[in-house]
Amino acid sequence: MKPFPLDRAFTLLEPGPVTLVATHDGQHDNVMTITWTMVLDFAARFAITTGAWNYSWHALTTRRECVIAIPPADMLDTVVGIGLCSGRDTDKFAKFGLARHKATHVQAPLLGDCLANIECRVIEVIAQYGIVVLEGVAAHADPTRTDCGTLHAVGDGTFITDGPVLDRREMMRPKLPDSVLPPAGVVGNGIIRSKPTHKGKTHGTR
Amino acid sequence: MKPFPLDRAFTLLEPGPVTLVATHDGQHDNVMTITWTMVLDFAARFAITTGAWNYSWHALTTRRECVIAIPPADMLDTVVGIGLCSGRDTDKFAKFGLARHKATHVQAPLLGDCLANIECRVIEVIAQYGIVVLEGVAAHADPTRTDCGTLHAVGDGTFITDGPVLDRREMMRPKLPDSVLPPAGVVGNGIIRSKPTHKGKTHGTR
Repeated sequence: MKPFPLDRAFTLLEPGPVTLVATHDGQHDNVMTITWTMVLDFAARFAITTGAWNYSWHALTTRRECVIAIPPADMLDTVVGIGLCSGRDTDKFAKFGLARHKATHVQAPLLGDCLANIECRVIEVIAQYGIVVLEGVAAHADPTRTDCGTLHAVGDGTFITDGPVLDRREMMRPKLPDSVLPPAGVVGNGIIRSKPTHKGKTHGTR
Repeated sequence: MKPFPLDRAFTLLEPGPVTLVATHDGQHDNVMTITWTMVLDFAARFAITTGAWNYSWHALTTRRECVIAIPPADMLDTVVGIGLCSGRDTDKFAKFGLARHKATHVQAPLLGDCLANIECRVIEVIAQYGIVVLEGVAAHADPTRTDCGTLHAVGDGTFITDGPVLDRREMMRPKLPDSVLPPAGVVGNGIIRSKPTHKGKTHGTR
């Protein structure tokens, strides 16, 4: 994992990938699968939705920090498996052989098998809706993993993988903050699989 | 547009597609491009994020209703164009030649060019974060448009299209409410492009 610009960390979540959210309760690490996420700003501010029925809720809302990790599409069976068991009775890191690294700002671990990790602090819990508002404090990505896309959960047990990337950066330039534009040579958020080659008619991509 | 089961309307938003959100201010229809969305439950409860800087904010928060529409990937240039102009000085329906239909429960229109439409009522505005909590009251989808996928905004002017669909319905069955499982013969949310054919090792999909 290499440092990833915090200003652009929202581009890791904006496409709506399935995420793994790692927590630490003071004694143990845990990890859950979360597909209900949202960007809140052109900055490192996000929301996730879960609830008190989830074992991670206590660690998340009392330690007030977590790591949001973006798993590659080829981790699907692990991602689903993590969602099917509970940290209450299972050490998910052992069960699924997950690699973890020390984070820089939070106690929750980075997930070494993932494409990217965002260290976050909880800034508000809107308990009525299970919405947890997060502020990113550091981000990391694996620059060697651009061969692999992400997963988008449909919510019924099917998952959409990433297809080709379409480039409308020139068209959208007037609307985007400078901080959002990637450095020369970098395409998209740096973890999306395909180079944007479809600059013409979008009908050609159907 | 045909009726779509409201119980399963969250499966239209959970994959994180770019959406168009239509509003009606009492006199005029308007439409905005929104990529900051989140599912809040295994039910028709969603959140979107925008703010008072957005011309649609007034109609959305005073009329307390909207339609969330899911555009197909081949509407990309229209979707970006809608995001680059304002209803303050532009009739976007005329400018982009958008087809609209009367909704059944709200004054905002359905978008005829889109894959699906969800009629929503605003149930809470969390102004500090620009979060608008919505409850779906009716849903519609175009059953003839399963040839086309959706768009996932990266947030920097690039967009990821839908790739192949992976099926883990059997593995996830213990975790899913009955209402979520699609009727026999229906795959996923009914608007995703590809049939789930990758039931084996996910490594084969990279």
